[in-house]
Amino acid sequence: MTTAIFPGSFDPVTVGHMHLIERASHLVDRLIVAIGVNTQKTGYFTPEERLEILSESVADLPNVTVQIETGLTTDFAASVGATVIIRGLRNVTDFEYEQGIAGMNQYLNPKIETVFLLANPADAFVSSSLIKEVIQFGADITGVLPPAAAKAIEQRRNENAD
Amino acid sequence: MTTAIFPGSFDPVTVGHMHLIERASHLVDRLIVAIGVNTQKTGYFTPEERLEILSESVADLPNVTVQIETGLTTDFAASVGATVIIRGLRNVTDFEYEQGIAGMNQYLNPKIETVFLLANPADAFVSSSLIKEVIQFGADITGVLPPAAAKAIEQRRNENAD
Amino acid sequence: MTTAIFPGSFDPVTVGHMHLIERASHLVDRLIVAIGVNTQKTGYFTPEERLEILSESVADLPNVTVQIETGLTTDFAASVGATVIIRGLRNVTDFEYEQGIAGMNQYLNPKIETVFLLANPADAFVSSSLIKEVIQFGADITGVLPPAAAKAIEQRRNENAD
Amino acid sequence: MTTAIFPGSFDPVTVGHMHLIERASHLVDRLIVAIGVNTQKTGYFTPEERLEILSESVADLPNVTVQIETGLTTDFAASVGATVIIRGLRNVTDFEYEQGIAGMNQYLNPKIETVFLLANPADAFVSSSLIKEVIQFGADITGVLPPAAAKAIEQRRNENAD
Amino acid sequence: MTTAIFPGSFDPVTVGHMHLIERASHLVDRLIVAIGVNTQKTGYFTPEERLEILSESVADLPNVTVQIETGLTTDFAASVGATVIIRGLRNVTDFEYEQGIAGMNQYLNPKIETVFLLANPADAFVSSSLIKEVIQFGADITGVLPPAAAKAIEQRRNENAD
Amino acid sequence: MTTAIFPGSFDPVTVGHMHLIERASHLVDRLIVAIGVNTQKTGYFTPEERLEILSESVADLPNVTVQIETGLTTDFAASVGATVIIRGLRNVTDFEYEQGIAGMNQYLNPKIETVFLLANPADAFVSSSLIKEVIQFGADITGVLPPAAAKAIEQRRNENAD
Repeated sequence: MTTAIFPGSFDPVTVGHMHLIERASHLVDRLIVAIGVNTQKTGYFTPEERLEILSESVADLPNVTVQIETGLTTDFAASVGATVIIRGLRNVTDFEYEQGIAGMNQYLNPKIETVFLLANPADAFVSSSLIKEVIQFGADITGVLPPAAAKAIEQRRNENAD
Repeated sequence: MTTAIFPGSFDPVTVGHMHLIERASHLVDRLIVAIGVNTQKTGYFTPEERLEILSESVADLPNVTVQIETGLTTDFAASVGATVIIRGLRNVTDFEYEQGIAGMNQYLNPKIETVFLLANPADAFVSSSLIKEVIQFGADITGVLPPAAAKAIEQRRNENAD
Repeated sequence: MTTAIFPGSFDPVTVGHMHLIERASHLVDRLIVAIGVNTQKTGYFTPEERLEILSESVADLPNVTVQIETGLTTDFAASVGATVIIRGLRNVTDFEYEQGIAGMNQYLNPKIETVFLLANPADAFVSSSLIKEVIQFGADITGVLPPAAAKAIEQRRNENAD
Repeated sequence: MTTAIFPGSFDPVTVGHMHLIERASHLVDRLIVAIGVNTQKTGYFTPEERLEILSESVADLPNVTVQIETGLTTDFAASVGATVIIRGLRNVTDFEYEQGIAGMNQYLNPKIETVFLLANPADAFVSSSLIKEVIQFGADITGVLPPAAAKAIEQRRNENAD
Repeated sequence: MTTAIFPGSFDPVTVGHMHLIERASHLVDRLIVAIGVNTQKTGYFTPEERLEILSESVADLPNVTVQIETGLTTDFAASVGATVIIRGLRNVTDFEYEQGIAGMNQYLNPKIETVFLLANPADAFVSSSLIKEVIQFGADITGVLPPAAAKAIEQRRNENAD
Repeated sequence: MTTAIFPGSFDPVTVGHMHLIERASHLVDRLIVAIGVNTQKTGYFTPEERLEILSESVADLPNVTVQIETGLTTDFAASVGATVIIRGLRNVTDFEYEQGIAGMNQYLNPKIETVFLLANPADAFVSSSLIKEVIQFGADITGVLPPAAAKAIEQRRNENAD
């Protein structure tokens, strides 16, 4: 009975994340999407909003749940009984960034293994930060967001427009 | 009659940019240098100052003009009738960064093609951000700036020294 | 009136090449696909076979023609009146390889500019050499080949099976 | 009950491979090390010799077996009921090479997922090809080989010296 | 009599830095570790604290001293009679970042040569910024810090906990 | 009294090599350029021809000599009393290739340190293999070769033309 976590900021969750989460869900018995909280910067969505959006987005995946994590990723993994961290890789920049994180996590808890999936090629340009950048100029990026995220962004825009 | 845009921050414009703009100007009928405005951080020069410096710098290139753009790059391109975005590449880091931007732009407007030129090898180390970093320590970087930018930086320094 | 060449081995031409050729054809007045001949190794297809396959593949693109080149790419470009070389980039490995070639070509003939298009993300894994590798094990790779190439490979296989 | 394959040439198997195989064996129920046969070049060891060396090397890992594969990796995976291919990544060069292979395998059989482990940092320089290069100059590389491979290389050297 | 500088932020100094400093100390007659001061952001430790920690850490290396530098690295090098800058490289991201800095330094003072050492493979994941990130979550990273840095961090934590 | 070796194939030596050799010669007391002999492939020039060309090319550098090495680089270094191997880096591909070699050399002889210089930016495209490729098509690459190499290539061409 393998449990894995899929950690990230998910601010917002994208179709790139969703494709990876779905593929990852087939590899393990139980997958917990872990929303990391960056204490030093305010996100577009609060952790609670991201939890709601993600929970709705993974509703069809029976072995996937979502949680907020506020400490070390490896501590969180251990606390939920996970032995595997799953991360996606789009390109070389991702690879080297993840290599650093995975090395640190391996140092902090050698019992937890990080495994990587390649992002779908068509999702190569889909990143939360780029999406947030174009959102502020009114871009329609519905096509690269799961419905729950698209709806929440639309709502946020309408609020701001008021 | 091909129109292209060459977008960037140009804070400040460097000889690296100038070499690319000149080479790009030979590839198309009309080239518009588009000064992107980052609403979230204050630059070294204001967009208007950059417009003035760039306009002076491209004065000898008959088919090149300069404009400030405040929205999506693809919207700006469409608004000026451009079908091509031209960008320079110095190295792998540039390449992967640009790959993300170009993918997003292709998603936002599939009719606009992004084409890349390689930076002149001798300009490999010339970046606006590195220049700004060494300027604050009084470095003489006149050699990597077009005259109009060198003059404006000198003036700014004298003002600050007052 | 801009003329460009799109050089390569095209052994065999793939959908990745075709997407790039089509996009490149919109950027210039006349595009010549130049089949480079490697004198040191025998290809899967002879240059003449590749010429036939490519000519059939570009038949719908009115401003594209195909030729075999046997010397320096820059000499060929000059001989057909081209001022631009167009190449595609899939990833970092491509980028650094092309950077070397483009630097050499710039040295050999500074009047000819190399411009780059990014490969379609979905074509990231499509390479002639990988295709040849899996062909020998009987893989069906029809989906990543233009019809003329798929047909020629099928024919070659039937010949070998005889 | 997850079955995975760990494909490679293993000519010779290194401690880098062994560390990955052991880590991979903890992630799945059954792991099959698949020795790929390159029909176009003669290896240092024959596939049968590699099978013997690897079988001895994995003898302590209860859920790991070794087989020779002579066709497409995805066909082999399907034939043994594997739904996962596991590969190791040392660096950027590996990453981009594997991205191409994984993309092709995904195209050939979308039901099979490729997952990646990072090589142990200390194994970063351990590659079969580099080992073969220094072996010919008499280097003692016992420390980067499992005992069975070290013994076989020693034997081969003594034969050649006769 | 060669003098070199080893510049960095050292906020905090890690075992990765220490391995490089020790190896560098064997290559030159005199090595000065230069603590660069970033005027735009507050560090975890003040420059004076870093000076103290580093001085204690290099106490056993007879030809190594530590200084704070507040201007251009090349000016500092010249002022202490150094003709060489030594920097470490962990990966591709480091390499391209350093390539920019070294190019700029070469432009600013062509008499000063930058030479690079590869980081120890086992230190690949050890970076000051990643360490600071996990410290805030209470991670025990004593193993990747020289004793003086570990002690200072422990002290800081106790202060904050009061 | 530091002795270093600068190993390579030098088939042929280029201006890129010469710039690095000259810069390296200022860093050490004695520099030995070591011509590695690849037993498995015939070069453009024989090792003896390369020795002659290189010896002529370094004649002006008083502390530089040239030797042919036929075994392990680290054994050669030890045999001439060198404690340092110096190599140049042009780009990411070089970096990762050299990282593997340096790791192996460090394993084979931990007393020998590999240090790296960055290639001059303008030499980024200058590689022996690319030069050999364009030579066969009659390219004039005199500008990227030291005079002795240019002369020898000219001679070889005239011989072949006879």
